[in-house]
Amino acid sequence: MMLKRGAAAAIAPFLVMDVIARANARQAALPAGAPGIIHMEVGQPGTGAPRGAVEAASRAMLAGEPLGYTEAFGRRSLREAICRHYASFYDGVTVEPGRIAVTTGASGGFLLAFLSAFDIGDRIAMVSPYYPPYLNILHALGMVPVVLPATEATRFQPTVAMLEQLAEQDGLPDGLIVASPCNPAGTMLAATELAVLAQWCDTHGVRLVSDEIYHGLTWEMPAATAASFSDTAIVINSFSKYWSMTGWRVGWMVLPLDLVGAAERLKQNMFISAPHVSQVAAEAAFACTAEIAANLSRYRRSRDFLLQHLPGAGFPSLSPAQGAFYLYADISARSGDSLSFANRILDETGVAVTPGVDFDAGRGQGFLRFSYCGPEDDMRNAPSRLALLAH
Amino acid sequence: MMLKRGAAAAIAPFLVMDVIARANARQAALPAGAPGIIHMEVGQPGTGAPRGAVEAASRAMLAGEPLGYTEAFGRRSLREAICRHYASFYDGVTVEPGRIAVTTGASGGFLLAFLSAFDIGDRIAMVSPYYPPYLNILHALGMVPVVLPATEATRFQPTVAMLEQLAEQDGLPDGLIVASPCNPAGTMLAATELAVLAQWCDTHGVRLVSDEIYHGLTWEMPAATAASFSDTAIVINSFSKYWSMTGWRVGWMVLPLDLVGAAERLKQNMFISAPHVSQVAAEAAFACTAEIAANLSRYRRSRDFLLQHLPGAGFPSLSPAQGAFYLYADISARSGDSLSFANRILDETGVAVTPGVDFDAGRGQGFLRFSYCGPEDDMRNAPSRLALLAH
Repeated sequence: MMLKRGAAAAIAPFLVMDVIARANARQAALPAGAPGIIHMEVGQPGTGAPRGAVEAASRAMLAGEPLGYTEAFGRRSLREAICRHYASFYDGVTVEPGRIAVTTGASGGFLLAFLSAFDIGDRIAMVSPYYPPYLNILHALGMVPVVLPATEATRFQPTVAMLEQLAEQDGLPDGLIVASPCNPAGTMLAATELAVLAQWCDTHGVRLVSDEIYHGLTWEMPAATAASFSDTAIVINSFSKYWSMTGWRVGWMVLPLDLVGAAERLKQNMFISAPHVSQVAAEAAFACTAEIAANLSRYRRSRDFLLQHLPGAGFPSLSPAQGAFYLYADISARSGDSLSFANRILDETGVAVTPGVDFDAGRGQGFLRFSYCGPEDDMRNAPSRLALLAH
Repeated sequence: MMLKRGAAAAIAPFLVMDVIARANARQAALPAGAPGIIHMEVGQPGTGAPRGAVEAASRAMLAGEPLGYTEAFGRRSLREAICRHYASFYDGVTVEPGRIAVTTGASGGFLLAFLSAFDIGDRIAMVSPYYPPYLNILHALGMVPVVLPATEATRFQPTVAMLEQLAEQDGLPDGLIVASPCNPAGTMLAATELAVLAQWCDTHGVRLVSDEIYHGLTWEMPAATAASFSDTAIVINSFSKYWSMTGWRVGWMVLPLDLVGAAERLKQNMFISAPHVSQVAAEAAFACTAEIAANLSRYRRSRDFLLQHLPGAGFPSLSPAQGAFYLYADISARSGDSLSFANRILDETGVAVTPGVDFDAGRGQGFLRFSYCGPEDDMRNAPSRLALLAH
């Protein structure tokens, strides 16, 4: 007989996965010697983990270390290294190792954050455009995302005014997710803006979840961490982006003291521990400063080049490229169907981009996301390719 | 101000984690040269991944492969290798690669299984004693575990009679979790028994979740897979136990066709993909048959030795040791408080064991779990140590 499925089964797919599949199919069908597809749809660096990280992992493996389960919150030495990172990277911010949970990527962090802090039916606010898993994980857990449409006027970031309006109309939310730099818009909250939001959350009993996965990838000002401004906020970070270690699935949380026990029990039961070999690699990655700096210089050059040349290639309306490796382009003057438009771009120019509807179901019809973390040559060739698109 | 926590935050800890911490503290306090703690509390092999697996992972890393995200369901080549494993290991069972999801350990499989198949409030049956995360993950997701006390009379396994009785008294459950071999009892369902349970579930619209993580670690008869008997069952397996790869966090599910799309969307959003380097290692592990066979021989020798000598050491009542690497000992004649008893054993004999209350909140007061996957010398020394315990 036909069995039922869970309601969580109805969450949305990432449309970008379809774009990737379509781009790969086109690549496979190209004649030999033809220029390849330029991938501006992917949210991960083309580079692998830093060499020093890979070598440390390989050494541990070949030395016969069993690399079994670690403690639920991760290797002690990695947790201490993360604390030292806070002290140096954020100019003296102090966090204790006991508040650090090493997670299975930022993804694992979101799951633990939501389950430890929120209940079924709780309302969690975020702006659109947003990273799709925020909304989809909350839906899967029976929680209620409350989406606040943000615009270029606030650099696609939330403000206290937006939250006050929500509180007045529908009541206080139980939580707020912020991301600075954010995906897809690549914009940031200034330190003072984050401090004000954190203070507002703390005053009103709203749990702040700060997604800091793009910290370090900042082009105009350094990013501030919510850990500086709040003892109740949950900070989520990862080795995936700045350290170029996406596939290793290792990240971390800075937990408020009141959630440490809860998150630890959830982690024991739902994950046991993050992958051990990835924890070894991550710890070594902190020392790979030259390689990370070279990656950053490449992103910055690609960013600057695209900001200069995309407008002339038919994409004049770009979000402020303050951080991460994304440009969010308003294409509403050319199309009201961003998925079809993205497909047309791929078919006519061989450039893969992500439709805005992945990040904002309604208004995303008028936006595209360009990722510039791919090979620098590809990024330099992208504008002239994109200019081929028929108007 | 003090913020609230989620209800999921109230799930139980693994008591075994406290035992491990206590054992490690004792070990650290031992004078130099003193006999060390014998670890019979841990559910993971002391051996690491097979050498061929480690070498393949190291090769991929040092060759500069980016090892970024894989497709949500894992590397195609690994999914195909898993299908070949079914054909050879289970004597011709056919599963298609499209039904295989490579997961972040069996833990990741349970989360995807429960969320794709069940809803908040759904009732999922399992016997006690059980693997604690079944119950704790269900609680965390707002689902309702229905615990059926099983006894030695059914080798601590469920029967259709138990399910019929549940259906009559409280209505049909939405799901049933089975494990053969099971943790902590180390007992199995015969192939015919599993077939009958699968048929009953299918007929009554009850989703069967079959935990097959200990397959291969069987000492009396081979284990049957639910994939042979049911097109609606979810099978969960892992490279952690048979392949000795706990810390790598890589496992798999065999999904029924109706859940493939749902599980894939959930996996994209909640995990992105399983760790890439672990997937490379896992694929190579299939070829490491000599090393796996040597591990198995060691477990078997330890099992046989303990079955022979534990009774004389004061533990005469042991579950049938059909599979996995656990013995479940009825100690109710000696203690009605298994946690205190386990602590006494550690303090007086230096042997760490797991209290039954981790696996069965009530009746577990009269049971202990002995794990025999540790070093063979330790397992040989355990009975004489345990005999030191004052009666």
